[in-house]
Amino acid sequence: FVSKLPEVPTSIFSVMSTLAIKHNALNLSQGFPNFESDSKLIEAVNKAMNDGKNQYAPMPGVFSLRKAIATKMENLYGVSYNPETEITITAGATQAIFTAIAATIKKDDEVIIFKPAYDSYEPTIQLFGGKTIAVQLNPEDFKIDWKLVKGLISDKTKMIIINTPHNPSGRILTKQDMLQLETLLKNTNIILLSDEVYEHIIFDGEQHQSAALFPALAERAFITASFGKTFHNTGWKVGYCLAPKELMDEFRKVHQFNVFSVNHPTQVALAEHLKTPNNYLELNSFYQQKRDLFLSLIKDSKFEFIPSKGTYFQLLNFKNITDESDYDFAVRLTQEQKIAAIPISVFNQHKLDTKVLRFCFAKTDETLKQAASILNSI
Amino acid sequence: FVSKLPEVPTSIFSVMSTLAIKHNALNLSQGFPNFESDSKLIEAVNKAMNDGKNQYAPMPGVFSLRKAIATKMENLYGVSYNPETEITITAGATQAIFTAIAATIKKDDEVIIFKPAYDSYEPTIQLFGGKTIAVQLNPEDFKIDWKLVKGLISDKTKMIIINTPHNPSGRILTKQDMLQLETLLKNTNIILLSDEVYEHIIFDGEQHQSAALFPALAERAFITASFGKTFHNTGWKVGYCLAPKELMDEFRKVHQFNVFSVNHPTQVALAEHLKTPNNYLELNSFYQQKRDLFLSLIKDSKFEFIPSKGTYFQLLNFKNITDESDYDFAVRLTQEQKIAAIPISVFNQHKLDTKVLRFCFAKTDETLKQAASILNSI
Ligand SMILES: CSCCC(=O)C(=O)O
Ligand SMILES: CSCCC(=O)C(=O)O
Repeated sequence: FVSKLPEVPTSIFSVMSTLAIKHNALNLSQGFPNFESDSKLIEAVNKAMNDGKNQYAPMPGVFSLRKAIATKMENLYGVSYNPETEITITAGATQAIFTAIAATIKKDDEVIIFKPAYDSYEPTIQLFGGKTIAVQLNPEDFKIDWKLVKGLISDKTKMIIINTPHNPSGRILTKQDMLQLETLLKNTNIILLSDEVYEHIIFDGEQHQSAALFPALAERAFITASFGKTFHNTGWKVGYCLAPKELMDEFRKVHQFNVFSVNHPTQVALAEHLKTPNNYLELNSFYQQKRDLFLSLIKDSKFEFIPSKGTYFQLLNFKNITDESDYDFAVRLTQEQKIAAIPISVFNQHKLDTKVLRFCFAKTDETLKQAASILNSI
Repeated sequence: FVSKLPEVPTSIFSVMSTLAIKHNALNLSQGFPNFESDSKLIEAVNKAMNDGKNQYAPMPGVFSLRKAIATKMENLYGVSYNPETEITITAGATQAIFTAIAATIKKDDEVIIFKPAYDSYEPTIQLFGGKTIAVQLNPEDFKIDWKLVKGLISDKTKMIIINTPHNPSGRILTKQDMLQLETLLKNTNIILLSDEVYEHIIFDGEQHQSAALFPALAERAFITASFGKTFHNTGWKVGYCLAPKELMDEFRKVHQFNVFSVNHPTQVALAEHLKTPNNYLELNSFYQQKRDLFLSLIKDSKFEFIPSKGTYFQLLNFKNITDESDYDFAVRLTQEQKIAAIPISVFNQHKLDTKVLRFCFAKTDETLKQAASILNSI
């Protein structure tokens, strides 16, 4: 038996969470909250199960949930997505990303991505025979050099993947960025995959610049989003994809034979919950308080940082502490100091080690204090 | 924009269920029960949510569930699967099938399938560049002619997909079948994908012949299975895949970037439920009673049939009623007679119309009586 995928490693999120459990370490590696979802949401799932919502949901998702998403897009961004044809519920945002790539990328198609990048993009592109054209972001500010991107676009460019707010750096794309991207893509057939799973976690009064806001982007964009990150239940595995009908038709061709449909009772509950805008609008200040607490607690540590502008991640540079590789340091921290983080080199496909670890601050204040006290002692 | 998948249609299950809802028809098309899951199982999901099992499950699945599956395989078939490395929980059996194919099938690999076949196999194989070698089963008994299969095996054969009990026909593979398959595959590198989602629904005292029971099959087999079909909650979308470590390593390489992991609280509940063997052992007689009721009620109708030996599906031949295509007849039955079924030609990729419809009898006795009274009037 010869492996089809000899070079694909185990996802760093699985590696680090498993190691954290083994060593009984504080787990600030994989991105998930260690506090609870609104109990109303749990009660609503229970009610949906008791109401008999236990058989297949419709293939594109529960209609009331798709409608609630359309209403949110209308209210928040003033854009309209047709819930019948332009919204599909997925088994988490990762499945949405996988399916969008599966539905469009063929052998030798080029896909432009920006590194550091979420670890699923590149192996998924390669699984479908695509070629990744990676732009390495400046490790200081993670800004995109659009001139450089322009130089990489060719007849073979099939897709470009952006991610804002950006995992792992917390950088957000500005309106200027999006306008420049629009200029680049207008009059091309290039598809945009806009990973916006942290759209509701953005700090310092900044506005999320969804691809949905820019007509020449929206008309070619798969936008992927996540309920787990917004409603503190990453383990329910419900996300969604938005796209114009023509692209969504293609997406559903794969979706129906990949997962067919998504857990039904959670969709019913999420539909109700999404109808109350405060359930997501309050997330910005909620997580900004967590970021500020975490950073104020470690400001005198040996770690260096630039405050995250969005997501629930904070990068910390450890060059003043050790010259170990980020991977070795992350493993050692977990084993010896009982705190786990993500080594950023894996988001660079192990090709660039900037001595930076990513810490998830979606944690109780108590956990953040414990984490800070460990980090201050290093 | 040029479609990558111009020939992929919408899944017949989505088409027929949508049509059934539109026309307010009895839905015996897509396979799902219209009665409830054990309320204990619902309570257990609720408890898991209240216990805080709302963040990512481990990538391969909740360990207690994997262990309960291993125990079941040991008790039922006397075979051992290592829950650490040889069992992965999936977002339904369809995702298990998709992922097994994704992890192994490359451009120009040949995959032998038997038609009529579950509608996801062929498009999934094609998505990864594979070539389907289809064996048309005899429409009377759906038996496999192993000599014919032998003649189709070549250097290019990468995989063979079997399905027992068989959807849509209810045919089951015998021990003799499995031994012949073993003889064919021994000393080859051919992978077996054994779709056993109806393993617990088998009638007339027959035994399920799992690929796990045959060493020369098990060592090369992905076995896919479903909780939805066993515990009456198809909408929870939890299934699993079994495979020897070497194959499971490959499976997980794709799984982690496809869905990463599966809904957490339902896994916790299913783990408990699976520990009581009666929860699945009673399924055979439960569904045999339904089959027998349904068939006795329609025995004087114009439909012809051979009783199903497994699954919750019954084929009915309508050649005495009309010479419409099965698809047209299925649509007309839904619109005019208010009863929906699956036209079998779609399981033959529209290439063979044997004037047969598939009816799902996973319905309350009341619904089966209503269905029979419609069918008797035609
Ligand atoms: C799907 S597990 C990864 C969670 C996450 O988005 C992250 O930690 O970056
Ligand atoms: C995933 S929807 C299809 C359900 C099913 O297995 C069937 O009806 O054949």
